Amino acid sequence: MRLAHLIGPELRDLLRNNPAEVSELLDEVHAEDLADVVQELDDDEAAELLRRMSADDAADIFERLPEGRQEALVEKIGLQPAARIAGEMAADDRADLFSALPEEVGDQLLETLERVDPEAAEEVEELSKWPETSAGHLMTMQYVSALPSVSAGEALETVRRKAADEDVEMIYYVYVLTADERLQGIASLRDILTADPRTPISDIMRENVISVAPEMDQEVVARMMAKYDVQALPVIDTQGRFHGIITVDDTIDVMTEEQTEDVHKLGGVQPVENPYFDTTVWTLIRKRAGWLAVLFVGEFFTGTALRHYDGVIASVATLSYYVPLLISTGGNSGSQSSSLIIRGLAVGEISIKDWWKVLWREAVQGVVMGLILALVGVGRVLLWGDGIRFAVLIGVTLVFIVAGGCVIGGMMPLIIKRFGLDPATSSTPFIASLIDVIGILIYFSMAKVVLAQVLAQASVAPVH
Amino acid sequence: MRLAHLIGPELRDLLRNNPAEVSELLDEVHAEDLADVVQELDDDEAAELLRRMSADDAADIFERLPEGRQEALVEKIGLQPAARIAGEMAADDRADLFSALPEEVGDQLLETLERVDPEAAEEVEELSKWPETSAGHLMTMQYVSALPSVSAGEALETVRRKAADEDVEMIYYVYVLTADERLQGIASLRDILTADPRTPISDIMRENVISVAPEMDQEVVARMMAKYDVQALPVIDTQGRFHGIITVDDTIDVMTEEQTEDVHKLGGVQPVENPYFDTTVWTLIRKRAGWLAVLFVGEFFTGTALRHYDGVIASVATLSYYVPLLISTGGNSGSQSSSLIIRGLAVGEISIKDWWKVLWREAVQGVVMGLILALVGVGRVLLWGDGIRFAVLIGVTLVFIVAGGCVIGGMMPLIIKRFGLDPATSSTPFIASLIDVIGILIYFSMAKVVLAQVLAQASVAPVH
Repeated sequence: MRLAHLIGPELRDLLRNNPAEVSELLDEVHAEDLADVVQELDDDEAAELLRRMSADDAADIFERLPEGRQEALVEKIGLQPAARIAGEMAADDRADLFSALPEEVGDQLLETLERVDPEAAEEVEELSKWPETSAGHLMTMQYVSALPSVSAGEALETVRRKAADEDVEMIYYVYVLTADERLQGIASLRDILTADPRTPISDIMRENVISVAPEMDQEVVARMMAKYDVQALPVIDTQGRFHGIITVDDTIDVMTEEQTEDVHKLGGVQPVENPYFDTTVWTLIRKRAGWLAVLFVGEFFTGTALRHYDGVIASVATLSYYVPLLISTGGNSGSQSSSLIIRGLAVGEISIKDWWKVLWREAVQGVVMGLILALVGVGRVLLWGDGIRFAVLIGVTLVFIVAGGCVIGGMMPLIIKRFGLDPATSSTPFIASLIDVIGILIYFSMAKVVLAQVLAQASVAPVH
Repeated sequence: MRLAHLIGPELRDLLRNNPAEVSELLDEVHAEDLADVVQELDDDEAAELLRRMSADDAADIFERLPEGRQEALVEKIGLQPAARIAGEMAADDRADLFSALPEEVGDQLLETLERVDPEAAEEVEELSKWPETSAGHLMTMQYVSALPSVSAGEALETVRRKAADEDVEMIYYVYVLTADERLQGIASLRDILTADPRTPISDIMRENVISVAPEMDQEVVARMMAKYDVQALPVIDTQGRFHGIITVDDTIDVMTEEQTEDVHKLGGVQPVENPYFDTTVWTLIRKRAGWLAVLFVGEFFTGTALRHYDGVIASVATLSYYVPLLISTGGNSGSQSSSLIIRGLAVGEISIKDWWKVLWREAVQGVVMGLILALVGVGRVLLWGDGIRFAVLIGVTLVFIVAGGCVIGGMMPLIIKRFGLDPATSSTPFIASLIDVIGILIYFSMAKVVLAQVLAQASVAPVH
């Protein structure tokens, strides 16, 4: 990154004036840094540059651009050169490109790719069979395989041969496949190097293999890769057929993507895919306004609830001064619980069947924290001079509201997950809005009990 | 995971009754799955089991247990066997263990380790020199290195020899070091395998190396590893001395850890390190009550602000019915902005110097979304029969509050980062509380203008 900043301006000049020299540059500068610089060019300049480079070099840069940028560039580059670049991209990046393109452009590009590089086109079709966020869409079909009968020495020769082919992403594992494409085991290059070259590979391979199904969600794949510390996971379908492998670098990208999604959802925003500054203000509004309006309409109920108690409020106006304090505190405790549970679900520490343990633990935390806040709150009420009855009312309400917030904040993610939705949808604003309404109901119900005497007097003559 | 569940019960019986057979099991069951099962045993059973296994096998399981559990087990296992297990752990996991242990226990264990495995003890001291969340603490000093003068064939022999040593985590890169430990370049095993064995390694190594400094934060390290798609990053200090390497599997763990921290902070919880169910209710309360109390005290200002307008509220009680609706909407729009900006900062898409662009973009979004909500809100006001003046008041207030929410929510993470703090501290509850107070001020200031006539009449005779 430092490098990109240092050489940025000169590099940009070079890219503009002498694109032919870029291939030499690629030996010295990392493709990621070049992609950063290309990212700062305008569409016409970037397209011109990529068109003039060799397809191989252009692919190295193109596959590192954000999807929105790729989409914009494909038409500017032209179908023929774009197809040649696509042919050189990593299989999963290529499949992503096709899913991101508008259908018409995608179809035209695929047709062109079929002529330019039939094998790559076939891979696109194979990967596109699976949902965009599934293991099948993330895999590559370029791996090193061997029959169970070969020796370690022969396997090493295969690795050596495949290592020279740039399309093969992962050469550090040899997948031992039967003639009908069933995975017998995996031998790491490490095992192969340390074994006697005459040993049959079936003697050194690991048979108890961790694998994923092609329809498995990419988040689960990432979690398995993180757990088992492997560099690649084989993709095997329910019939036991081997489809390809998922490499660790793709997993890291998935984790970053999924985490962005979660943070956005937690903040009540529909996930935004492209970087903030590459997303137009209108797109951001589209991603935000929906949820904001839903929550806004939901909050109408606070008005309805308050109107329901208008007689009480008219008698004791002081009651309304505490509403924001109480409901926001309920919302805050709910946000805390939901963030704990949402994260626990995401990393697999908590599962739905644990709901009663969550309920119990959150209730205990809620009561204890409610009592702590009640102590502070009672002090404040007395300082404001609202009297002992109000102090009792606020104290009791705080315990109920904080406990309620914890329980609702803790249970909502589980309930949402139970209905097959993403628990992160139980965003902080959503929890807060829910608790706002419930908080008002708790508060005024308590008020009617605690202030019964005051209210009875007030119905004769207004207090305030 | 499936495997662990299937064989869980039988495995547990076996672990309880025949721990000697566990080494055989380790050939067939993944250490991660065994760790899952051990995790379900109680401390005495787990300690007994780890003590009876070979130190090597025990380390494989022990390093995969959560830190809290490791801490609890060290004393049960006993210093001597625990030191032997620690000696076999991966360098970074071992350093983590020592940072997690209470100082006294840690010192005793280190003393024992110095006798059992001096090299491992030295590594602990080397890694512990660096802060717990830095690159230096994450590295391993077991790598494959070669002098610039060796040939590709000789380098391959070195790799082969090192591959047999289980302590060497990463054998897929050869670090070309001068005699005084300066990194000249990196040759991947792939490059070595495809080169002519007689080629000098200095001809095939990559010289433009991406490296990290030992004091660099682990989150930045993870981001670089994600960007450059490498399996390991070299750690080089400002004097150019090579210290060790960080492997990709550790990066994945770091990403998971940092994401958990961010989600917790966003929800207004001090990060909780251990899994939810492994954390006591009291620890959770400690991690939550502080922030909750701070926010609670902050919300006192809503009460102060409302009291400031008590005359206005007494005149037009209807005003108070809209308070929760308005302030929560401001809070929601602020949460959306802050989640977008916090995430953008975390992945490096946004930097502090972009503040004016953020300000401008958030203001535009705020005004547009405010207008959309104003349309809906005005309709609701008229349906409630609060009249045209109220409709104008609510509409205008919504535009100001939503725009204010977006601007505050967007700018706070940048301001917090400017002061050297983690932007995620600008949690959703924090933003919401801030906007609650500001929202009340905006609302009643507007009310005084828009309802001036009504309020003037009311001062003669109460409206409600």
